[in-house]
Amino acid sequence: MVKVRRDTITSGTGSFRLAKTSSDSGARAGELLTPHGSVPTPVFLPVGSQATVKTVTPGDLKSIGVHMLLANAYHLYLRPGVTLIERMGGLHRFMDWDGAVLTDSGGYQIFSLANLRKVADRGVVFRSHIDGSLHSLTPELAVEIQQSLGADVMMVLDDVPSSTGSFEEVQRAVQTTHIWAERCLRAWSSGDRMLFAIVQGGLFPELRHSSAAYLTSLGFSGYAVGGLSLGEPKAQTRAMLEETAVLLPPGKPRYLMGVGSPEDIVDGVGAGIDIFDSVLPTRVARNGSLLTWRGKCNIRNSAYREMDGPVDSDCDCYTCRHFSAAYLHHLFRCEELLAYRLATVHNLSFMSALMGRMRRAIMEGEFKSFRERFRAGYQPTDEEVRLAQKRKWLDARNRRMAIEDE
Amino acid sequence: MVKVRRDTITSGTGSFRLAKTSSDSGARAGELLTPHGSVPTPVFLPVGSQATVKTVTPGDLKSIGVHMLLANAYHLYLRPGVTLIERMGGLHRFMDWDGAVLTDSGGYQIFSLANLRKVADRGVVFRSHIDGSLHSLTPELAVEIQQSLGADVMMVLDDVPSSTGSFEEVQRAVQTTHIWAERCLRAWSSGDRMLFAIVQGGLFPELRHSSAAYLTSLGFSGYAVGGLSLGEPKAQTRAMLEETAVLLPPGKPRYLMGVGSPEDIVDGVGAGIDIFDSVLPTRVARNGSLLTWRGKCNIRNSAYREMDGPVDSDCDCYTCRHFSAAYLHHLFRCEELLAYRLATVHNLSFMSALMGRMRRAIMEGEFKSFRERFRAGYQPTDEEVRLAQKRKWLDARNRRMAIEDE
Repeated sequence: MVKVRRDTITSGTGSFRLAKTSSDSGARAGELLTPHGSVPTPVFLPVGSQATVKTVTPGDLKSIGVHMLLANAYHLYLRPGVTLIERMGGLHRFMDWDGAVLTDSGGYQIFSLANLRKVADRGVVFRSHIDGSLHSLTPELAVEIQQSLGADVMMVLDDVPSSTGSFEEVQRAVQTTHIWAERCLRAWSSGDRMLFAIVQGGLFPELRHSSAAYLTSLGFSGYAVGGLSLGEPKAQTRAMLEETAVLLPPGKPRYLMGVGSPEDIVDGVGAGIDIFDSVLPTRVARNGSLLTWRGKCNIRNSAYREMDGPVDSDCDCYTCRHFSAAYLHHLFRCEELLAYRLATVHNLSFMSALMGRMRRAIMEGEFKSFRERFRAGYQPTDEEVRLAQKRKWLDARNRRMAIEDE
Repeated sequence: MVKVRRDTITSGTGSFRLAKTSSDSGARAGELLTPHGSVPTPVFLPVGSQATVKTVTPGDLKSIGVHMLLANAYHLYLRPGVTLIERMGGLHRFMDWDGAVLTDSGGYQIFSLANLRKVADRGVVFRSHIDGSLHSLTPELAVEIQQSLGADVMMVLDDVPSSTGSFEEVQRAVQTTHIWAERCLRAWSSGDRMLFAIVQGGLFPELRHSSAAYLTSLGFSGYAVGGLSLGEPKAQTRAMLEETAVLLPPGKPRYLMGVGSPEDIVDGVGAGIDIFDSVLPTRVARNGSLLTWRGKCNIRNSAYREMDGPVDSDCDCYTCRHFSAAYLHHLFRCEELLAYRLATVHNLSFMSALMGRMRRAIMEGEFKSFRERFRAGYQPTDEEVRLAQKRKWLDARNRRMAIEDE
């Protein structure tokens, strides 16, 4: 195979500027320059699959300090349809968001459909999780859809292997991912919209290496690490991430897909990742789980029933400035819709603060000590509990052809 | 019975100032002066039973132009409890609302419990709709609870008869209502918090007359008309309202409880009512029914699928300024939580605009022509459909000991 294109974008809009690399870790601070503004990195992208980050308005997101969000081409293609969004002036105008947008190609969603999809050389044929209608997606169409939506950063269509797949199965998926990535690159009209490739390879270092080597040789605007955090133990995720990150070109942005717990993000930043996305902060918010510097706390717990102060005294978000933990506890007990919004605002504000503090620490050459302080203070969810929850969620998700979740 | 107190409050905070009475209808413009600011009348109060107007923050309400809301002593007494709210500095501080609050005593909710309550001379014994626990409420306790919550306007505990009750049944309920009203008045500590009586009498003009005559003779801060809009035809509601309103003292505020459809409110204002409350605008919003000057429209309707403009081009609310009808349609189809919030903001903004326009029309001596223009443009829900919906809702509500609704 030939190298299709190498680094057509080196500066200006549609590029990445590295501001600082940590001397005592892989951590980096930078800036993603998009047609919809500059995005300081490391950055966490809230997920707005269906052209809305659940419960919050674009104005709320701006107040929280969000510069970029993730939308999902798969969801939007099915509903309300790409033609409609195009007619409405593109995704930004449709949802009234003037910040940057990264779109996921839909690979992950489609490969979660299990029995509802079939991979062919040309692309993938799948049934809609909404109405069972038959659709066919090719790498070319995936790019076209994302371009029509007006994404600032597009993702290639990838073949996501099961996290329990054999070496041969994962190897086959990696090969398909490579062929499709190249076709995406050819279909991409370049300009100031970026296209990121996705390194696959499951939990096999050898496959991760070859995937990274091949994809970086083609020259994309950025590189994602896919297929992790799918129910494997954290130590394995971390090892695989560190293996992969060092293989990616330092001048390009690096994106760890679907990772969103604070402790994993701190590790990811340490491993040299610039971009993260996950439904975690917004999903757990709706379950009453609030992120703090001490760890997650469940506001439904009776300990909060009479707490007059904010749930997190270190937090200056809208929710904590205006409402007591007792009030949030009350709203959750009553299943009041405002509960979900206030908790979402808090959790996204926490993520924003976390990313901001990390960026400052990197700029000041203090990332390692930041990470130590963070780890000393933050109590992550017990690993066994976490794994059980994650697997339960993934199962439920697959059973209901899920995806509706976010 | 003796007259307990007459007009202890005549001016200043905790009073009502009449600014203008329409010469060609009963319509009045005025101002309710409360410890939490002045409330221009006629006014519509959004319902925030559980210390939250569903989906919106106090900040949203302020932006919409809301000066006063309704909270429900029954709900708050059961959850989170009055002692807790008192400890949190009162209802205003608990929910971060610095505007005025009117609390309903809970009479209506308790009398909706049907088999779960028993009226005795002393008061009413009822079972919680949440956990079945047994509670007893007296007129004195109803006032004490509302005072503890910090309500700006309190309501007496009343005995709400069934809308299909016989003359004798309704008469008995009126008598109980009168005795309880007098006891509430004795229990009230006056000051700058107002106490309103509730005129009952079902659909019997004779009972309405005697109820109005007796209650006004006691001298409350204001008078409500209760027990209407409970499934009877609109013409009957209107006739009964007009009968009652003229019996109330012109210098005191008049409150029509539980009436919230735009066409009924316009009629109510014409009959001389100053204050309205209802879950209607917020409840129908969550069903996708948006209020416009042409009538209600259902945003789920496919006609809105591709509508690039706002749902109502006459509306300058946050929702209509920022989002197209097509976007709202999409959010409702996807059952996205943001849908309910944006629709609520729109409907409450419509109510605010409606009340504002009526007030201006009254001040300019133009209410009658305003009403004609409104009626010419506004298509109310078909009466049969409306009655069927209302009865269905009331039934469902009673079946599930409802009340959770709002």
